[in-house]
Amino acid sequence: MQQHPDARPGPVTTGPIRGSRKVYLSPPGHPDLCVPFREVALDDPHSPRLRLYDTSGPYTEDAAAIDLAAGLPAPREAWLAARGFEDIEGRAVRPEDNGHASGERLVAPCPARRRLRRGRPGQPVTQLEFARAGIVTEEMVFAAHRENLARTAASAEELQRLAAGESFGAALPALVTPEFVRAELAAGRAILPANINHPELEPMVIGRNFLVKVNANIGNSALSSGVAEEVEKLVWAIRWGADTVMDLSTGRNIHNLRSWILRNAPVPIGTVPLYQALEKVGGDPARLDWAVFEDTLIEQAEQGVDYFTIHAGVRLAHVPLTVRRVTGIVSRGGSIMARWCLAHHRENFLYERFDDICAILRRFDVAFSLGDGLRPGSLADANDAAQFAELDTLGELTKVAWGHGCQVMVEGPGHVPMHKIRENMDRQLAACAEAPFYTLGPLTTDAAPGHDHLTSAIGAAMIGWFGTAMLCYVTPKEHLGLPDRDDVKTGVVSYKIAAHAADLAKGHPAAQAHDDALSRARFAFRWEDQFNLSLDPDTARAYHDATLPKEAHKSAHFCSMCGPKFCSMKLSQELRAEADAGMRAKAAEFAESGGELYVEARS
Amino acid sequence: MQQHPDARPGPVTTGPIRGSRKVYLSPPGHPDLCVPFREVALDDPHSPRLRLYDTSGPYTEDAAAIDLAAGLPAPREAWLAARGFEDIEGRAVRPEDNGHASGERLVAPCPARRRLRRGRPGQPVTQLEFARAGIVTEEMVFAAHRENLARTAASAEELQRLAAGESFGAALPALVTPEFVRAELAAGRAILPANINHPELEPMVIGRNFLVKVNANIGNSALSSGVAEEVEKLVWAIRWGADTVMDLSTGRNIHNLRSWILRNAPVPIGTVPLYQALEKVGGDPARLDWAVFEDTLIEQAEQGVDYFTIHAGVRLAHVPLTVRRVTGIVSRGGSIMARWCLAHHRENFLYERFDDICAILRRFDVAFSLGDGLRPGSLADANDAAQFAELDTLGELTKVAWGHGCQVMVEGPGHVPMHKIRENMDRQLAACAEAPFYTLGPLTTDAAPGHDHLTSAIGAAMIGWFGTAMLCYVTPKEHLGLPDRDDVKTGVVSYKIAAHAADLAKGHPAAQAHDDALSRARFAFRWEDQFNLSLDPDTARAYHDATLPKEAHKSAHFCSMCGPKFCSMKLSQELRAEADAGMRAKAAEFAESGGELYVEARS
Repeated sequence: MQQHPDARPGPVTTGPIRGSRKVYLSPPGHPDLCVPFREVALDDPHSPRLRLYDTSGPYTEDAAAIDLAAGLPAPREAWLAARGFEDIEGRAVRPEDNGHASGERLVAPCPARRRLRRGRPGQPVTQLEFARAGIVTEEMVFAAHRENLARTAASAEELQRLAAGESFGAALPALVTPEFVRAELAAGRAILPANINHPELEPMVIGRNFLVKVNANIGNSALSSGVAEEVEKLVWAIRWGADTVMDLSTGRNIHNLRSWILRNAPVPIGTVPLYQALEKVGGDPARLDWAVFEDTLIEQAEQGVDYFTIHAGVRLAHVPLTVRRVTGIVSRGGSIMARWCLAHHRENFLYERFDDICAILRRFDVAFSLGDGLRPGSLADANDAAQFAELDTLGELTKVAWGHGCQVMVEGPGHVPMHKIRENMDRQLAACAEAPFYTLGPLTTDAAPGHDHLTSAIGAAMIGWFGTAMLCYVTPKEHLGLPDRDDVKTGVVSYKIAAHAADLAKGHPAAQAHDDALSRARFAFRWEDQFNLSLDPDTARAYHDATLPKEAHKSAHFCSMCGPKFCSMKLSQELRAEADAGMRAKAAEFAESGGELYVEARS
Repeated sequence: MQQHPDARPGPVTTGPIRGSRKVYLSPPGHPDLCVPFREVALDDPHSPRLRLYDTSGPYTEDAAAIDLAAGLPAPREAWLAARGFEDIEGRAVRPEDNGHASGERLVAPCPARRRLRRGRPGQPVTQLEFARAGIVTEEMVFAAHRENLARTAASAEELQRLAAGESFGAALPALVTPEFVRAELAAGRAILPANINHPELEPMVIGRNFLVKVNANIGNSALSSGVAEEVEKLVWAIRWGADTVMDLSTGRNIHNLRSWILRNAPVPIGTVPLYQALEKVGGDPARLDWAVFEDTLIEQAEQGVDYFTIHAGVRLAHVPLTVRRVTGIVSRGGSIMARWCLAHHRENFLYERFDDICAILRRFDVAFSLGDGLRPGSLADANDAAQFAELDTLGELTKVAWGHGCQVMVEGPGHVPMHKIRENMDRQLAACAEAPFYTLGPLTTDAAPGHDHLTSAIGAAMIGWFGTAMLCYVTPKEHLGLPDRDDVKTGVVSYKIAAHAADLAKGHPAAQAHDDALSRARFAFRWEDQFNLSLDPDTARAYHDATLPKEAHKSAHFCSMCGPKFCSMKLSQELRAEADAGMRAKAAEFAESGGELYVEARS
């Protein structure tokens, strides 16, 4: 059979982020665990190397040897092998899995093969079940060290910050221990999405008492994108800090495309199985049924998808509540299920079959991301009856899933004006018993298409501060088109900023260290350190060089913003020197010397 | 004398914003007043034309005939002529006003000449004095109509929104009357910056009970920019929504450069006189004195500058409080005055001479922008003793200036984590008796140089919601270099978003109408309306066309983000049609028809 030209993705972006080095460090007592960090070496001999959270996977290693066809190394393989899961053949791929694509139109699957597993009844399978059993898994140890940014102790300064922050009831620890991760998972306050068929995963935890996480969406639509483009989007998104990635592909070749993504993904991958199920029935929501949905869940769970968005909260009785909205139902999954409910005038079958769904997800430890199919699509519809009716249903389903041993997070809006954001967080915590909240934005105005990464970063920072565990990014192309590579980077960086701003406001013990290091570099005119410590070093450097390209300017005591004579930092530095030496004495001396303020521009 | 090549600025950007039309409307009973609005005509016959606040001046008229050498029309001339001010010759320009530039290095002044005026003792001169005297000026009537977006009545819907918002003690009226503007000015809660020598001004009001405003900074530094570039930056900044513009030029030709800007500025222009004073003494802070500063105040006041940043709050006793900071003093003016205080070990002469400064500003109605010379330059320094000590001094000076009949706003930070923003607003309101707050950002993290328009838009939206009256923009080049044209647009649009998000959250009666109109256009797939209603129509259109360039797609019921089969809006529209027709009946009918969901892509 002839292969689609896209079958073998072209080379993806590799190599370290400029000015940083990928390092792997082991948690105390676990020399076998290699936890990744982005290490920035500073010019200042007095400043220690700063270690930042690193989501980028092996792609940013110094000599990254990437073979997409072979897939990434599988750090979890040994851990999983020891857990006595059932080995399975796995479901055979069917033509409809790839939209009946054939010949040139068929994308070949990723050749990388992994041992397929399934949990047995009775044994602990999910991280929640292990946590409840009091078992600290390797994944928990790994995630804990990651959260600490390799710290093994908290400084007095950090404890002070923790006390100074406002966490709205979140209980951030000074230092995250594996036991703390276990306890948070057991309580349902956090999830550790890690499908037992995703051994390539570098484990991470999502919860209100941990660093705020960011998700990036990729995926082709019927109108665009091929395999190479999608895998590069994954690699590109995690390079800039995406903690998880959702593959929202539709159209043909969904199954094979996903195989390339999963085998090369060091981060949890999420999907909306409903999209593929709809493809299998020719795109007609009315023809959806449990059989095709169940088949799709198993297909994707065996592939290793780490979390599924399930729109089980869109109940028949909720649909009429949306009819008078300004923008109706804006969730794809929500509109599909609402359509199904109306077509059959029956209760949402995802709601009726929720126990069966739980049973499948538990066997592979696929976490639930309970979809907010009725989220508002405009400020006018924010916090309305439809939205909160669904939220209450999601709370009910959260407890059902917990009863099956499944991990759960809950999706949230959307479009919400600033003064209505807090209510979303408070209601979710109450309705869903503190299960992690995973919000899209929210956008704080509808009036700026083309800049919705920013309209939404405002709301994302706020709701992250209030307690949202993970923020789903929005790119500048939102509402307008499919994001390209640059849009993905802009979206991810904008959301890393929102998440980090939230961590700082919550008083996260380690978050402030990053800002302080950059601020000290700024005050000391260590330009290289300023660039390298930025969440986006390339852009910081490029903007500086746009006006002062010369190497000499990398140590100049000014930039083109104010020029040499008006640089407040320069003046302020001299001020400090004088003050330190005693103001009065200096004042006299200064008068005599007629203190020179000029700095020669080296240009 | 040979002229500098930049003497006559090249053509600036003119013509309407795409999809909008500049209209002038008169307030009831004032047919002589022409208040500008940006009018967007919608494709939907059922939707009224939307009128948006318009800061762009005559430059966006259909057939804009701009002659920079002649300057803009002077709508205020007749009003000012009737007030019995003293006609003056004005101070003669001196070589040091332009940094002793001569020959080819000298930029020729703008040839446009205006009648020069000065207020007499005893007569009302400032808008504050008129307001206190119970006189409603033309400027107040003009500004009121502007605030109402040409509304002459508030709808029930608007009143409902007003009640639903959270304004943190602000008292937004359903409709702004000229009398309300007068009362707010008289109370010192708002300012109407309008130098009596700036007749070209289109009056606007800055206060907590009005729309949140945005300032853009322009100005050359020693290392960059010429006249043409600066005037175009002004025109470009107001085109995208800058309500006021500060000229922060340093180096040579400051005086002549400013003459081009003022004669062509329909918005209030602010400056920091200290910068020019420093140039006059060769850049050595220690050589600054009252004589050179007084001369500079008069020079700039006669030119028509509408507000001055005065760093009188940096007192000698405050300086030691900054010594242990992570980033010391980051305000240019603050560091210059701190340097002066140390050099002479004397109290800040701007503080000691504050009464004299007030006397000068009153004569021309130059508003005070009390500078926060000790604002924090990093999150680590936020809300510290130095910052709040200065704020208390600014509160004291506010009352002194009011005693002289001067209008006052107060500048604020800077770099502040989200959880410390609210305290800034509350303390300013208390310390400064509700005088308008004018903040820079604040940036909510220091860790993203290259994206500080976004790190700061988050803080700006929040503090705007809490009560800040005007937000000073930050561009992507902040901390890195001098912003270019694109950076200015990105900065302004980002801050219009922040200001608008704040208006929405405060429940401003007219703000929501804009978002609703755009959301309805979005739901109805009126793509042209979506683009045209955006705060940045060009970018919205360009992003859409990047994937769906064809004209046919401007009416397509999908975009490339989801493609035709997965467009939730499309599904949702059909849903509404069904629900309206009665769910049960439809359900049966649908089953028979096997309801077609596909939409043919027209590409």
